[in-house]
Amino acid sequence: HHGHILDERLAVCRAALAAQLPAPLTSAELTWAGRIAWRNHARCIGRHYWRSLNVRDHRHLDSADQIAASLREHLEFAQADGNVRSVLTVYAPPDHPGGPAPRIWNHQLCSYAGYRHHDGTILGDPKTIALTDHARALGWEPPSTPGRFDLLPWIVSGRDGRPHLFPLPAGLVREVRLRHPQFAWFEQLGLRWYAVPVISDMSLHAAGTDYPAAPFNGWYMGTEIGARNLADTDRYNLLPVIAEKLALDQRNPRSLWKDRALLELNAAVLHSYESDGVKLVDHHTASAEFIKFCEREKTAGREVSARWDWIVPPMSPATTTVFHTPMAEFPTTPDFHAQPSAWASAGATAAEKS
Amino acid sequence: HHGHILDERLAVCRAALAAQLPAPLTSAELTWAGRIAWRNHARCIGRHYWRSLNVRDHRHLDSADQIAASLREHLEFAQADGNVRSVLTVYAPPDHPGGPAPRIWNHQLCSYAGYRHHDGTILGDPKTIALTDHARALGWEPPSTPGRFDLLPWIVSGRDGRPHLFPLPAGLVREVRLRHPQFAWFEQLGLRWYAVPVISDMSLHAAGTDYPAAPFNGWYMGTEIGARNLADTDRYNLLPVIAEKLALDQRNPRSLWKDRALLELNAAVLHSYESDGVKLVDHHTASAEFIKFCEREKTAGREVSARWDWIVPPMSPATTTVFHTPMAEFPTTPDFHAQPSAWASAGATAAEKS
Ligand code: HEM
Ligand code: HEM
Repeated sequence: HHGHILDERLAVCRAALAAQLPAPLTSAELTWAGRIAWRNHARCIGRHYWRSLNVRDHRHLDSADQIAASLREHLEFAQADGNVRSVLTVYAPPDHPGGPAPRIWNHQLCSYAGYRHHDGTILGDPKTIALTDHARALGWEPPSTPGRFDLLPWIVSGRDGRPHLFPLPAGLVREVRLRHPQFAWFEQLGLRWYAVPVISDMSLHAAGTDYPAAPFNGWYMGTEIGARNLADTDRYNLLPVIAEKLALDQRNPRSLWKDRALLELNAAVLHSYESDGVKLVDHHTASAEFIKFCEREKTAGREVSARWDWIVPPMSPATTTVFHTPMAEFPTTPDFHAQPSAWASAGATAAEKS
Repeated sequence: HHGHILDERLAVCRAALAAQLPAPLTSAELTWAGRIAWRNHARCIGRHYWRSLNVRDHRHLDSADQIAASLREHLEFAQADGNVRSVLTVYAPPDHPGGPAPRIWNHQLCSYAGYRHHDGTILGDPKTIALTDHARALGWEPPSTPGRFDLLPWIVSGRDGRPHLFPLPAGLVREVRLRHPQFAWFEQLGLRWYAVPVISDMSLHAAGTDYPAAPFNGWYMGTEIGARNLADTDRYNLLPVIAEKLALDQRNPRSLWKDRALLELNAAVLHSYESDGVKLVDHHTASAEFIKFCEREKTAGREVSARWDWIVPPMSPATTTVFHTPMAEFPTTPDFHAQPSAWASAGATAAEKS
């Protein structure tokens, strides 16, 4: 029985070798490649759960339509009505290096539009301005009254490398309205965030092959939303708004108004996700779990590649154990990698063709 | 006139060259070496003020007594009744590499004793346990009722390398009792900290010479006290005590009890130093000043060596500009360096002699 599987595999590998291509992974191998890529990734504090990654082998899909349907399934399966599951879906690599392949233009499957007005002001998420423009160029129409939290459609290319627009079915993306355990006024700010971060623009590198479309997700760590997305001055920049409501003195940084507003914003994030039954981890717990991960890896005889500046949380960092833990980054494989934006690659392809 | 000074200097340099030693710096050169060492130091966020460093050339002092008297002057001049001045005092380098030279055994001129009890519990500052033991071995007697904030005596060696004990005159060290702008109970915790951090165990490297005794100080950044010294679990570990008073739920890290206690502790530090008229900078202002420093250095055509993990403050880091600024460390000279502890060196010297 095993001998038979081995024979088939050997035949596939020999054929690939003859064509000077890396041997394609089996689905079972791809599953473990995905898990190990997560385990290897130096910037991720959530790696304690690497064995539980659900990997979907969708390398057989061709068209943008098929891929968009597969992405909808990914998101629904990951959201799991709040009991968030870690998922990776892998689409086809290019037939030949540098050739066209499926690609997701969005940085994340869930994201909010960013509109730049003529007077230079920005409505929504400043991070998505370029993608929002691409969506409009492809025919997307923002709501008649654009808002701060308009979900962006997907832009997906199939094997042919040509981008298509996919508006999201109503109700697909789970969101959480933010309110504060003590302050009733907080809910009136009208803030919200989506339940699950599905990163969709990084490539998976495994066994000599780059998979440019390999969206993955875990659940959120609270500070990603409360100490970065909603707080950074070049994102939603909400600390002044919250400090105003808290009647803090914003003329003097020594009043710690930023620190206090940050604390209440993060308390609201943790409270709201918990109240809605959406899984999300606080930075103290995530830090403790990462330390456990490091210990287990040590027991298994493996070094952990880690970047201190990414692992240490952006809030009360010295109160977490990871702050006091020396770390070093080194190259690993399989791993996830940043890659040039899809529109840059598509532009290059278009330019080559013309 | 200038020609005369030049002739003298040339003679000194030729003599040093003949003896295969680095040419000793003039006092004026030492002043600039000290300032540039500060400007160069990759871990320091306070470098905006590097030109204002007061440098005292005390290379002529021989005995531990003389050096202790000079250290008392350093501290008084630096404390300046609260209007803290940046000061560096440089003592003699060894006559020959590895030979004995003045040395200050204390990590800082102001510090609190740490007592390890037989049951393993620690009273005071766990960081100073070794130094506290050395002080006792040299004859220091703790107060009849040891406390959490007992000022440690100095251990100083002169040119002969032999350590001597110097109890501090009452009233020499300026301290600040900590109270909170809103919570009356805070003062009842009986917390205090000293006004000025004079780091006394690093060596200054300049023009080929190591100066093992070169104590320096600026003023404090609030988080050094409130987010590290009083908060770290292996230091005063006060967050549980403050959270208790704030009636926070310590069973669950998700209540953000550590973050909230940290915020109130740091508010107390900033408030108390300000009320007592003791200069201390908050982390937001220090971050903004460091960015200004980087811009000025760029204008001057110099690269800034900086360690992100040391520069970024240990509280609300992502709300400061330094968090979003890429940094790189590279070797510089002149600079300050860590060196083996004085007792390790003294031990080695003793062993060599026997
Ligand atoms: C299970 C819960 C998870 C948690 C709490 C978690 C947490 C985090 C956090 C806080 C970051 C830093 C994000 C930032 O600062 O922008 C991060 C980065 C990252 N994580 Fe995880 N993660 C989880 C699951 C996963 C999974 C399932 C994968 C892949 C299979 C993954 C791969 C990565 C990668 C590649 C990055 C770097 C992203 C980038 O460079 O922008 N993580 N993670
Ligand atoms: C004027 C106000 C100053 C401020 C606000 C300041 C701030 C800081 C801070 C926050 C650190 C990190 C400390 C830690 O995390 O343990 C640091 C480290 C350092 N600073 Fe400054 N500093 C100042 C003046 C100076 C001066 C005058 C010198 C030397 C002439 C200096 C040299 C250093 C060095 C060598 C370190 C590294 C210390 C170590 O490795 O433990 N600083 N500074």
